[in-house]
This record gives sequence, C-alpha cells and structure tokens, in this order.
Amino acid sequence: MVSEREADARARACLTVVARPGDPWLGALLETHGAARVWADLRAKRPAPELSGEKIGAEHTWRRWSTRAQRVDQDALLGDSVEAGIRFVSPDDPEWPGRLSEDRVPPYGLWVRGEGDLRHLCLRSVAVVGARSATPYGEHVASEMAYTLGEHSVVTVSGGAYGIDGAAHRAAIAVGATVVVLACGLDVDYPRGHAALFADVARGGVLVSERPLGTTPRAPDFLIRNRLIAALTPGTVVVEAGRRSGALNTASHATEMGRVLMAVPGPVTSAMSVGCHVLLRDRQASCVTGAEDVLAQLGPLAQTPVDRPLRVEADLSPETSRVLAAVPRTGAGTASIALAAGGDLEGTMRALGVLAAAGLVERCPAGWRLPTPR
Amino acid sequence: MVSEREADARARACLTVVARPGDPWLGALLETHGAARVWADLRAKRPAPELSGEKIGAEHTWRRWSTRAQRVDQDALLGDSVEAGIRFVSPDDPEWPGRLSEDRVPPYGLWVRGEGDLRHLCLRSVAVVGARSATPYGEHVASEMAYTLGEHSVVTVSGGAYGIDGAAHRAAIAVGATVVVLACGLDVDYPRGHAALFADVARGGVLVSERPLGTTPRAPDFLIRNRLIAALTPGTVVVEAGRRSGALNTASHATEMGRVLMAVPGPVTSAMSVGCHVLLRDRQASCVTGAEDVLAQLGPLAQTPVDRPLRVEADLSPETSRVLAAVPRTGAGTASIALAAGGDLEGTMRALGVLAAAGLVERCPAGWRLPTPR
Repeated sequence: MVSEREADARARACLTVVARPGDPWLGALLETHGAARVWADLRAKRPAPELSGEKIGAEHTWRRWSTRAQRVDQDALLGDSVEAGIRFVSPDDPEWPGRLSEDRVPPYGLWVRGEGDLRHLCLRSVAVVGARSATPYGEHVASEMAYTLGEHSVVTVSGGAYGIDGAAHRAAIAVGATVVVLACGLDVDYPRGHAALFADVARGGVLVSERPLGTTPRAPDFLIRNRLIAALTPGTVVVEAGRRSGALNTASHATEMGRVLMAVPGPVTSAMSVGCHVLLRDRQASCVTGAEDVLAQLGPLAQTPVDRPLRVEADLSPETSRVLAAVPRTGAGTASIALAAGGDLEGTMRALGVLAAAGLVERCPAGWRLPTPR
Repeated sequence: MVSEREADARARACLTVVARPGDPWLGALLETHGAARVWADLRAKRPAPELSGEKIGAEHTWRRWSTRAQRVDQDALLGDSVEAGIRFVSPDDPEWPGRLSEDRVPPYGLWVRGEGDLRHLCLRSVAVVGARSATPYGEHVASEMAYTLGEHSVVTVSGGAYGIDGAAHRAAIAVGATVVVLACGLDVDYPRGHAALFADVARGGVLVSERPLGTTPRAPDFLIRNRLIAALTPGTVVVEAGRRSGALNTASHATEMGRVLMAVPGPVTSAMSVGCHVLLRDRQASCVTGAEDVLAQLGPLAQTPVDRPLRVEADLSPETSRVLAAVPRTGAGTASIALAAGGDLEGTMRALGVLAAAGLVERCPAGWRLPTPR
C-alpha cells in the first residue's frame, strides 16, 4: 500500500515521460486534480478531467499522452533511475526548492543526481550563464565569478554546455558545490566531453533535469531547460551572449519570474558581448563586473556566509524565529519541530532551509539541531 | 566711445585674468551688478558691491582680484589675443552657446580660436571624454565613435589631452569640425605634442578656453575645464576611465547640469574601464556601444543631419516657426529678422541657431537666408 504522497510522486515521475516540461495545461490539471488522478486517467484511457478554460487541441494532446502512458513501466522507470544514481524529487519532498513553486508552471518533478541537497544548494545560489562559443575573456570572467561566489558560499547554477557553463562549473567545483541543469536525461552525458565534469559535480553538488532517464536532448529542450535555470535561483548573470544567444532566453525567463537579472560588460568590439550590452542598454539587467557586484545585487541573504551564523536574528520572520526557538540542541525531526513551533510542516521546512542557509541550524541524524560550537 | 555691450565684453575679458573660472561669488556679482561695474570697482580699488548672502572671506578675495586688476592692460590683452588669432566671446555675442546660460555659474566669457562658430558647432554636439592613459581599445572606440558621429554631423567636443581626447579629435577632424576645450591659454599648446593637432582643429573647428592668453595649466584647472566640456554639450560619453579619472569629474558635471550621461563598457579585466562600469552599475550613465547608441540617446535633434532640412517643421516651437517665416530667401540681418518676426534679438538669435542646425536657414553676407537649393 503506497501513501498518497508516494502515489503523487510516482505519478509525477511518469508524467515527466509522457509530457514535455512546462506544459501549462498539464500544470493546471495537476493543480486542480492532483497528479495521481491525472495519471490514472491517462493510463485508463479515460477522457481528460474537466478544467475551466480548457485549451484548443487539448483532446489531441491528451490522447498522445495517454498513448505514451501505456508504454511506461512505472517500477522500471524508478528502479532504473535509482540504479543509475538518480532520484526523483517531487514538490512534496523536503529537497524540493521552495523557489520553484513561485513559477507559473512549476516542473512536474525533478530528476536529481549527486550527493548535494538541491534545495539547500539553490537557497544561496546564482545562475551564471552565457554563450557556448565563449571567448577566453568570457570564460575567464565566468571562472573568476563562480570561484569567488563559491568562496562566499554562493552556489553556481548553470547548464552543462561548453563555454561559459563549463568554465563556471569547473571553477565553482574547486571551492564548493555546483548545480548543473540539463535538458536531457541525467544518464545521458551531453555533451560527451563533459562526462568527467558531471561526475565531479555529482560529488557534493547535483545535476538536475525535468527529463527522465534516457532522454536525448533536442534543440527546443534547451529553451525549456533555461526556464528551470532561472527558476532555481534568485538571480541570473549573463557573462557573454551573442545577439541571439540562448543565454538571453534564460535572461528573459529570469525577468518574467521577477528574478534579479545581471549582465557582465565586455569589449564593444566583441560579438560575444553584444547580447549583454543590449540588456544593459535597455536597462533590463544591472551591470556587474565580478562576484562582489553580484553579491551586492542579491542582497542580504547572499551576503551571509553559510558557515557563520546571522548576527542579526531580528532579520528573521516571526515564523522562522519560532521555528529556530523550537530546534533543540540535541536535534529533532522536522515534524516534531513543526509541532513545537506551532506551524505546519511545509512552513517549518521552508524556515529550516532559511535557518540552515544562515548557519543557525544544521542537519543531524535525528533531523535538525542547533550548530555545535567549534 | 564704446557701447555698453562692448564695455561689458571688455570687462569680462579682463575678469578672466584676475579670477579663476566658475567662482560663484563673482558669478553672482556679475548677474546683479554687471561686468562693467564690477570691473570698474576692482580697478578703482573700491569695496565690493553689496550682495545678499555674501560669502565669508569675500573681502580678502576681492582685494586679491583688485590687486591683480591693477596689472591688467586691457588694450594689450585684447590686442595680443587678436594678433594670436584668438577672439573673446561674451554672453551677448551671437557666437555664445545658448546652452551655457543654463549653467549655475556660466563662464565670464570664452576665449576662442579657429574658423568654426562655437555656438553652431555646439548645437549638435556630444562630449567624448576619457582617460589620458587610454588603452588601444579605448582609443579605437573613441575614434570610431567620433568619426561616425561626424558622419551624422554631430560635433565631437573634448579636452586636448593624449589618449581618448586626442583619438576622438583626430577621427572627428577627418570627417568634420571639432571643439577642443583647453584648461590653459589658447596660445599655450598643452600638451606640446598636440600643437599640430590643435592647428588642424582650428581649420574649421574651434579651440576654446575660459583662461586668457599665456595662462599655463595647473592641475586644478583641468577640473574646472571639465565643467565647461559638460556645459557645452547636450550629452557626455565616457569612453574609458580609471577609478579616479578626471573623466568621471566631467561625468558628474554632466549629471548635475541635467545632461545625458553615457558610458562605454569594456573588459571587466581592464582598469581603464572601471570608471565606466561604476557609472553603469550605479545607473548614472546609459550603456552605449557606438555612435548609433549615442544618437539614439541624444534624441531627435541629433538625428537631423545639418545638411538636410527637417522634414517635420511641426517640431519647431511657435517662436522658431515665426522666425523661420521671417527669413527672406535673399537674406537679412538678425535685427531685421527679429523685427519682422515680432520677437526680441536674443530669442531670434537662439531660433536662428536652431534653424541653422536643422539646415532650414544658412549664413550669408547679409546675415541669414533660406538655403539655396542644390
């Protein structure tokens, strides 16, 4: 007998196989009827559940999903993933980045590979993106930025491409963990030349994708993936971008989602800086020349190193303060902390994430405890 | 017997010898009592005329000016200047740039050398400024920008230094006239290495200074001079600037005066672009990557080439339209045009300047006429 929550997660994992990420109709169906119901209807070839404002062509889409759903072997999907070191994180999971729920169409779920905790890595993070065909200048700036951000315990989130993405991850790994967001299945090392890099990332950091095991990437998938990069982070930095670079697509997602958008200037004679200069000229992005500028743009949360507690606990919200007061020095599980704090489970998890990022609580075998003095 | 206007101009010329440019007290005295009265009082060693809100230490300053005034040979000052090819332009002169009168403390008067008409050159102009110790990148960008602005009949205004200033002037000369703003007397070629450049500028363009013949430059004079560069133009572009570059001083004058401030981005690894990036980061300046961006920032006036008439005469103010209607095809003097247009002399001169800049009227022996069809 599976729990309701487990059924929801399993259904969501299967939905990542049948539907492309970011489908607004499926997003609305999930919100109204729940993943388990939607999945059961697809598998049983029942008609789509009713939804106000149903989009044209939905019948056809639903049938396509339903046909694909017949071919999904739920146990094999999850079993093979686990064997490949890939876990499925659903919105109910403590590892789910709270920030994603602000998105108009949040991912149905995320496939995650690596030792890091996705939620905690993304709390104090910044997307460092840019052209695949980067110049040595761009790669240098991306490296310096990711490294220095890492020194300030800010995690670099980026794609897995050559150029800016690769340079940023390589530098970030040298000083901490990073998050690679892929457009393909996490067992597909794309590009091949980054297989070793991805293995390095998995130690301490994570790779994440909306796509299931075995999915090879096609061009439009990268645009969908860019949405996730912007959504996972409080801010996006465009290091280098040609006039039609995919990084500008990530930039416009960041703006749409109300995230901080930043761009690195470069020589006006460089085609690879044209996109950045357009963002600056149109005042869509703030000008940043290095990690210090990025930290200043991201504000107080990013400026608090993880390994040092917040000096000013007055910065905490009343709810977060109550949760902090409820964390015992000896450690307790999330549920019992929520009970002691008088809050609900989700709010308590969110508060614990904030407190962990600020170094005010830490994980322990029992769950969470106040940090041990060093 | 000299006219009142001539007496004012002569007094102002002498005042440029005794007082440093931009003295707010002298500015106020001139506005309240007129230059002739102030100069006469200084020469006669009379006490300073009364002024509400007189500043502390004024007595001492006045005595110093008065002492210096005794040594000024008015006729020699103007005679020697004329011999050196230098004329004195006072606020009553048709060549006085109207824009200067918006300044908090306008120059007492301007020394001008060269064949160009300062007022008309400044109408459609932009200040292109930057570091003396510019990089090859900065000099390249300054050259491209000044040249392309010249192609669009926009005049480059800059200082006379090596680096950005020199690069901009050299390129601008190749396509049109330029305005060099000096911190020294116009007979003092500073720096010496630019003597030939200054001679080139004088053919078609002008050199301008607030300082009289023979004044050698000292460090603080350049800061005072920067005020004039910003004041002469509707917008200032900083091409390259170190963290403490004098170009940033010009930039802050431009902002204070409500001029358009622009900055060219560069490699974040270049110390010579740090100043530009600070202006961009703090959103004090707009990001421009070339002449096209500058033209877009400067708006409609800058986009109208001088040698082509405005298409939309509806853009003209009612007063300027009346003046245009009063200009005969055969030509007439400014005074008779003012009479025919029913306006005052100063307003008519201002309108004629605008019309000339738009190519709707042109100079002729009689004064002004409608352009001869080509």
